[in-house]
Parts: sequence; structure tokens; C-alpha cells
Amino acid sequence: MELNLETARQVIKATEERAEQVGQPMVIAVANDEGNLIAQHRMDDAWLASVSISRNKSYTAAALDMPTHELANASEPGNSLYGLQTTDDNKIVIFGGGYPLEKGGEVVGAIGVSGGEVSQDRTVAEAGVEAWEELLSEGVTADD
Amino acid sequence: MELNLETARQVIKATEERAEQVGQPMVIAVANDEGNLIAQHRMDDAWLASVSISRNKSYTAAALDMPTHELANASEPGNSLYGLQTTDDNKIVIFGGGYPLEKGGEVVGAIGVSGGEVSQDRTVAEAGVEAWEELLSEGVTADD
Amino acid sequence: MELNLETARQVIKATEERAEQVGQPMVIAVANDEGNLIAQHRMDDAWLASVSISRNKSYTAAALDMPTHELANASEPGNSLYGLQTTDDNKIVIFGGGYPLEKGGEVVGAIGVSGGEVSQDRTVAEAGVEAWEELLSEGVTADD
Amino acid sequence: MELNLETARQVIKATEERAEQVGQPMVIAVANDEGNLIAQHRMDDAWLASVSISRNKSYTAAALDMPTHELANASEPGNSLYGLQTTDDNKIVIFGGGYPLEKGGEVVGAIGVSGGEVSQDRTVAEAGVEAWEELLSEGVTADD
Repeated sequence: MELNLETARQVIKATEERAEQVGQPMVIAVANDEGNLIAQHRMDDAWLASVSISRNKSYTAAALDMPTHELANASEPGNSLYGLQTTDDNKIVIFGGGYPLEKGGEVVGAIGVSGGEVSQDRTVAEAGVEAWEELLSEGVTADD
Repeated sequence: MELNLETARQVIKATEERAEQVGQPMVIAVANDEGNLIAQHRMDDAWLASVSISRNKSYTAAALDMPTHELANASEPGNSLYGLQTTDDNKIVIFGGGYPLEKGGEVVGAIGVSGGEVSQDRTVAEAGVEAWEELLSEGVTADD
Repeated sequence: MELNLETARQVIKATEERAEQVGQPMVIAVANDEGNLIAQHRMDDAWLASVSISRNKSYTAAALDMPTHELANASEPGNSLYGLQTTDDNKIVIFGGGYPLEKGGEVVGAIGVSGGEVSQDRTVAEAGVEAWEELLSEGVTADD
Repeated sequence: MELNLETARQVIKATEERAEQVGQPMVIAVANDEGNLIAQHRMDDAWLASVSISRNKSYTAAALDMPTHELANASEPGNSLYGLQTTDDNKIVIFGGGYPLEKGGEVVGAIGVSGGEVSQDRTVAEAGVEAWEELLSEGVTADD
């Protein structure tokens, strides 16, 4: 089971379903382990700004090997990474909604979700992480 | 029949199938009538540069209401639009692979394809245009 | 034998030696298969502009899976890729000095060299390609 | 003893050894007194975002003649340099890991390190500063 276009589509599909349950349209991006795009979907009526934000969340999670919400506190004035959000050509997003996708302890890519409150973005993105982990555990071949 | 995420997915799916027939992996982007992303897929092993180029082809076709290959001649030295390719924050692509998607004579979005020779990009993108026109003519509801 | 920091250093070392033979200081960059930097060295007195150019040559060769000199003709006015050099955020370089590094027929990274006439850049970069191929054929472990 | 490619390599080598001791892969950049790159190495598995951040740390330390961690406090809301991090085309990094390299009281270049917690980045970067000072005090010719 690799993170490729087919599995990314399945991850995005599960994420879209969660967004529908939450009742908030989202933009969802999946990146590879070097932060480059595999696929991105903008659900109907999702915020325009979320196109860029979701992509940069996926980039950030892949580029720093951690969920984006873990960066918020450290990036506040007075803390160790204050100023992080303006580095790396402003591609670093320091609020929640970006998560690494892992396989055997290695980061193989990332998902980024934007479109609602951060708590909603995180809930929806976590559906994508869960879908990826299910794909891994089942070893099921794609049949979207 | 609207150009939305669901129909964009069907357009992309048909485009991917043409790319497989052509034997060249592509990156495919569908934009709305304002040039903003609806969906983008990078087929496995498609060129990295094509992520940006396909997206900007879809932007260009939507932003200028014409196929990108029609811009090449006018943009040559000595012709009327010489220099076009460096305007609009360098988002304008002047070689083939970007096409408007129309409905009732109005541009409602665009498709951009990159990943091979320009002739291949055009062949593959045209499959997307055809898929959109079929969706329009059939008025079929999405059942991907 | 992987393309990693240690092998990239050996590739760069061989490239520097060729640059010394040619008598022209160069900037040499090695990127991974997604176009991201592994290592870059600016030889003493090499042109400042070559820092950016060599890096983008390595990016281009990795992002399009081909040597950069193959892009020149196609990007001329009247030819199929006219306008290519202003796409992808201006990271595409269409003159010689960037080469993919391959392993088993797959592009695993790229080298970019800048600092002299294009013919010199190419001669020097080819030393890096040769060094990589020797590393592959010998399967020798790094002992720089 | 000049800060050139050969001495920069020795500085980077010592820095890499410290990173290995710390157990965190890093990206290490050495810039000249004008903030322009001399050499940069991305250790295997180091964060992608650190490629840009380490380089900008070296730029910042050379461009402002001071260690980057000294900028954090002054850049906080209410303090004199609030907003500094978004100046100079966002190349200014205001957290630790960038240090000037000095000779006879003059800044002749800088080192930037990124790849872990800021305290780790600083520890590792300081190994580079120490290596540079040893080279100066010994006046040893390069024999890498």
C-alpha cells in the first residue's frame, strides 16, 4: 500500500464524507513526503482562501513531520519558534488541520484541510488520517 | 448540470483514462470561471513541474476565455501580445493544454493538463472537454 | 547505493575537480527526485547569479525528468514549448547544465551546474553524472 | 585563513558531527558576509522546511551581524522591532540557530542550522562557530 493518487483519492473521499457530516464544505489536499501535491479537492461552496491554506497545511505537515496544530503554541510571542509562520516563503501554517500520513513510523505524505473553524478542520482532517490507517491495516487494493 | 466538484471529478476521471491510453502520466487541474481551483490530480510519476503548469493552464484558459495554444503565436516577438507570458504574476501559460469549459456559450471553468509533449497534453485535455460536453448533453446526474 | 548527502558530496567533489580542470569556478547543486536540495557548493569566485541558476537547473532536471539543454529549442518562439521558461514560478531553466541522476532507469535526483559558458557548465555537470554512475556501478560505500 | 568553500566544508563537517551526537538530522548553511550562500548540506531525513529556514538563518545573521536568537525579544508585540520578521522579503528569521562567523572582530560570514527544537539548532550551530574559531586560532590549512 503506497500513498499514490489512488489511495489519496480514497483518503480524500473519506475526508469529504466527514466534512458533509460536520456540515461545513472544506478544501482537502494530500501531499507526498516532499510536500508536493498529489491531489486537491475543493468542495462546493468551500472558502476560496482554503485552497491555499489547505495546500500549505499539507506542505507544512510534510515539511516538519508533525501536525500543524502543534506549532501554534511554540510560535507565539515569547516562545521558542516565534516567527516561524513567516519562514519558508510563507508556506508554513501554524494552526490545526494539517497532519502527517505515516507508514511504519515514516512520514510518507500529509493531509491538509481548511474550510471551517480550526476544530472542524481538525475533525475532518482526522477522518483522512484514519482512512489512510485503515488502508494500511487492511492492505486492501483500491476499488474507488 | 453545473461545473462543481462532482462533475470536475468525472471530467478528471475521463482525462486520466485518456492519459493512460496515451501512455504518459499527467497532472490535471479543473478551475472555475474565476480561475480558482476546483480539483487537481497528479497521476503517479507525472512530472513535478506539471503540478504548477497544469494549474496555470486552467487559470489561463479561464482568465482569458480561450485555449492556451491560441496564445502562442500572438505572444511571439513582433506580434501583438509579445510579453504576455510574464504578466499576471507569471500565471499565464501560452502553450497548449488549457481549454475553457463552456455551457450555453458561456465559459464556466477550464481544464489544464501537463505531463508530456504539448501535443499529448492537448490530446489528453481534449478528453476532458469532451467529457464535460457529454455530461452537458446527457444531463446525467453524477454517479461516479 | 542511494542518492543521499554522502553520495551527493562525492558527486559534487568530482564535479568541482572537473571545474578546476576547466579553469572556471562553478556553483553546483544536487537535488532529490522531488527537486528539493540535498547539497550545494559555491566554489570560490563563482558568479553570484549561479547560486540561484544552478539550484534551478537541478530543480528543472528533476521536475521534468530531462537535461535542461533539451528544453532550449522547444522553448523558442514558434516552437511547442515557447513560454516554458516563465512557468512554475520561474524555476524552469531552459539552457544547459542540469541533468537527471538515474538509477535503474528511474530519476532519483538531479545535478545543476552554473558558472561559465553553457558549454563549460555542461562539461562540468557531466562529470557529476559520471561520478554518480560510477558510484552506482561500483556499489562502493562512501569514504570521502 | 579565509571563509571560503574549503573552510565552510570543514565548518559544516564539524556541525554535522554535532548533529549526529544530538541525534537530530539538520540542514546546515554557510553564507558569506553579504549573506550569499557558500555551501549548504541537508542531512538525510532532515526536515524539508529546514532547507529554507537554515539558509535564511545564515542570511539573517550575516545581514544583521548578530545571532538570530537575539532578535526574538525585540520582535515581539510592543517591542522596538515588532514586525521585523516580515521585512526583507521574509528572509529574516528571528529564532535561534543563526550565528555570525567573525575574524578579528569583523563578521566574515554566518552559519544557519535548522532541523530540531530551537535549543538543538543552537547547540549544533555553535559547533560550527567553534570549528571556525579553531580554524582561525590554528591557522591550519584545509586538509579535509
